[in-house]
Amino acid sequence: MSVTAAQGFTAAGIAAGIKENGNPDLALVVNNGPRLAAAGVFTANRVKAAPVVWSEQVLKGGQVSAVVLNSGGANACTGPLGFQDTHATAEKAAEVLAGHNAGEVAVASTGLIGLRLPMDKLLPGIAQAAAELSGHGGEKAAIAIKTTDSVHKTAVAGQDGWTVGGMAKGAGMLAPGLATMLVVLTTDADLPAADLDTALRAATRTTFDRVDSDGCMSTNDTVLLLASGASGVVPDGAAFAEAVRTVCADLARQLIGDAEGASKDIRIEVIGAASEDDAVEVGRSIARNNLLKCALHGEDPNWGRVLSAIGTTSAVFDPGQLNVAINDVWVCKNGSVGEDRELVDMRYREVRITADLSAGTESAVIWSNDLTADYVHENSAYSS
Amino acid sequence: MSVTAAQGFTAAGIAAGIKENGNPDLALVVNNGPRLAAAGVFTANRVKAAPVVWSEQVLKGGQVSAVVLNSGGANACTGPLGFQDTHATAEKAAEVLAGHNAGEVAVASTGLIGLRLPMDKLLPGIAQAAAELSGHGGEKAAIAIKTTDSVHKTAVAGQDGWTVGGMAKGAGMLAPGLATMLVVLTTDADLPAADLDTALRAATRTTFDRVDSDGCMSTNDTVLLLASGASGVVPDGAAFAEAVRTVCADLARQLIGDAEGASKDIRIEVIGAASEDDAVEVGRSIARNNLLKCALHGEDPNWGRVLSAIGTTSAVFDPGQLNVAINDVWVCKNGSVGEDRELVDMRYREVRITADLSAGTESAVIWSNDLTADYVHENSAYSS
Repeated sequence: MSVTAAQGFTAAGIAAGIKENGNPDLALVVNNGPRLAAAGVFTANRVKAAPVVWSEQVLKGGQVSAVVLNSGGANACTGPLGFQDTHATAEKAAEVLAGHNAGEVAVASTGLIGLRLPMDKLLPGIAQAAAELSGHGGEKAAIAIKTTDSVHKTAVAGQDGWTVGGMAKGAGMLAPGLATMLVVLTTDADLPAADLDTALRAATRTTFDRVDSDGCMSTNDTVLLLASGASGVVPDGAAFAEAVRTVCADLARQLIGDAEGASKDIRIEVIGAASEDDAVEVGRSIARNNLLKCALHGEDPNWGRVLSAIGTTSAVFDPGQLNVAINDVWVCKNGSVGEDRELVDMRYREVRITADLSAGTESAVIWSNDLTADYVHENSAYSS
Repeated sequence: MSVTAAQGFTAAGIAAGIKENGNPDLALVVNNGPRLAAAGVFTANRVKAAPVVWSEQVLKGGQVSAVVLNSGGANACTGPLGFQDTHATAEKAAEVLAGHNAGEVAVASTGLIGLRLPMDKLLPGIAQAAAELSGHGGEKAAIAIKTTDSVHKTAVAGQDGWTVGGMAKGAGMLAPGLATMLVVLTTDADLPAADLDTALRAATRTTFDRVDSDGCMSTNDTVLLLASGASGVVPDGAAFAEAVRTVCADLARQLIGDAEGASKDIRIEVIGAASEDDAVEVGRSIARNNLLKCALHGEDPNWGRVLSAIGTTSAVFDPGQLNVAINDVWVCKNGSVGEDRELVDMRYREVRITADLSAGTESAVIWSNDLTADYVHENSAYSS
């Protein structure tokens, strides 16, 4: 599974000593070709970590031969010296991997903002990881990028002789200064960078972009898709796009399921919207309503807070025609009291909210989680 | 103090039995003239409670003779019957107050969304409140509009024979479904409705509109300014505007200081902005960052979270020129590490964040508070 499920890739995950607790903290993913095609999607935050600025440049060439990922430090807000550290990381990888070019080595980091990385540990770690590269290294790589993740996350899909696999860490920006969602997807399908880019953007738009855990946007979010062409198969475009979407959706669901301090996974489906943008805006507003997130934590089907969240959006709707279901009980009909809220069974981890805007036929699903005292504890200095 | 500090006003606050615990829950404020001029500002939420829809209509006439306020129920998302309840409330007030017209009676409600008000208790309560009206009733009125407020809130300002006084409850939308900020200001200055409107809008724009406790917008927010003209003084426009602003700022500060579950009051000043809109957008983004709010609760001067919040805005800035001070220590300079964060003294309740965008000369101040486990507890069903 993971990034070595597809042919043509090797990976490794090791403990380089970046994390003080000695846990694995450095992953290396290498594309052995014959193709080196790649696409990437990065954080929309205007305050970008050094590795994001670097990797955006690398991806412009459409070729990635290797990815170096580290946990234990975000290398964000570290100034020109931090950027030099990222550059040195790519140079070191190119040096220890015969025949690689630093300009084709992507870098991703996750951890505390505002601290320089311990390069005296990271650079030797790259050499060690290169020595341990294996066609079965995907699992170890997925483990090495964990920060406060309780489990490592991998997924795979494919058909007819080609495969898409991947690994992920984080969920939005959940941890104590430990920003970031990092995702690396690999495929042995034989496709050029432009096709990868199309499939990746379409997939992230309806998966990772619709996970909204705590409304906080990281400085480091990175999603990469690398193609080796090693299967020799040129897949049907729609089938490939669907496989990429399936892997992204699987990983996104795993991220929400592991969100810090969460006790409920919340699936928000907005239906009856005049446009998909309206549906997404409303879903996001519901996902970010702290009062609602507290209520759901307390197993309180508080539809009034759903309505007040909808009311802050610019979506097309008539307040008197809003309908809201919680776990399939329509507790709000026509903007007012609907079915008995006592009928709502809130005992399970997954909570389904359906908001019907009665304004059209478009829809969207946003995934979120509840707001808990554990989240506060894990993200205040008390716990660190 | 409160709404009876100015001449020409009487008020009362009583327990009508709307709240099950028997606490005061009904307030009445009466303008005895000679003028009945008034202005109002209401929630921007498109899902508006019945009393907001009613009072917006009343205010269009520019005259308000009385205000009925209740706690214990928001009368929001209650459909046409809820609107009839508000109408009946105004009719009842006009009936028991000799010579009043229901079309000049404003109504404001606060409490749980989605429940009808117990009109069998509310309507007799209006008669009782009318019987207890007094020129010293302002304090009791302020007490009767409390929901989860730990203290009642009043303020006063003025000069040269005229006065502006007021009362407030709530802070943003903080309580368990107990939405709402309700504010009534009164003055004996002799001014027409248009002048009141100008002064009130200018004041709320830089006070109540810049309090952002939990990012949640109520369905019931109401701020009213009533003028009796009883002093016979026509104040200087600038002096009157400043008095209204002073009372609003005082009450807004009291609201933040009493925010549910909060342990820190956070003053966010954005300077060096290219426009005031930019400064407000950045301040609001910082105020709404859950990760930062948790960090400040833990007395962690986590400037990285300030930068990542700034990075999500559309304001004009260069990430490499951002400076951030926490309690006057410039922990971030030029987008990177600045002065030693160990120098930041976080022991006190008030935390001052200064964000310098280095992009102009405009500025704005937003007030917020931290995110705590107590907030989660108070807003989950566990506590209700």
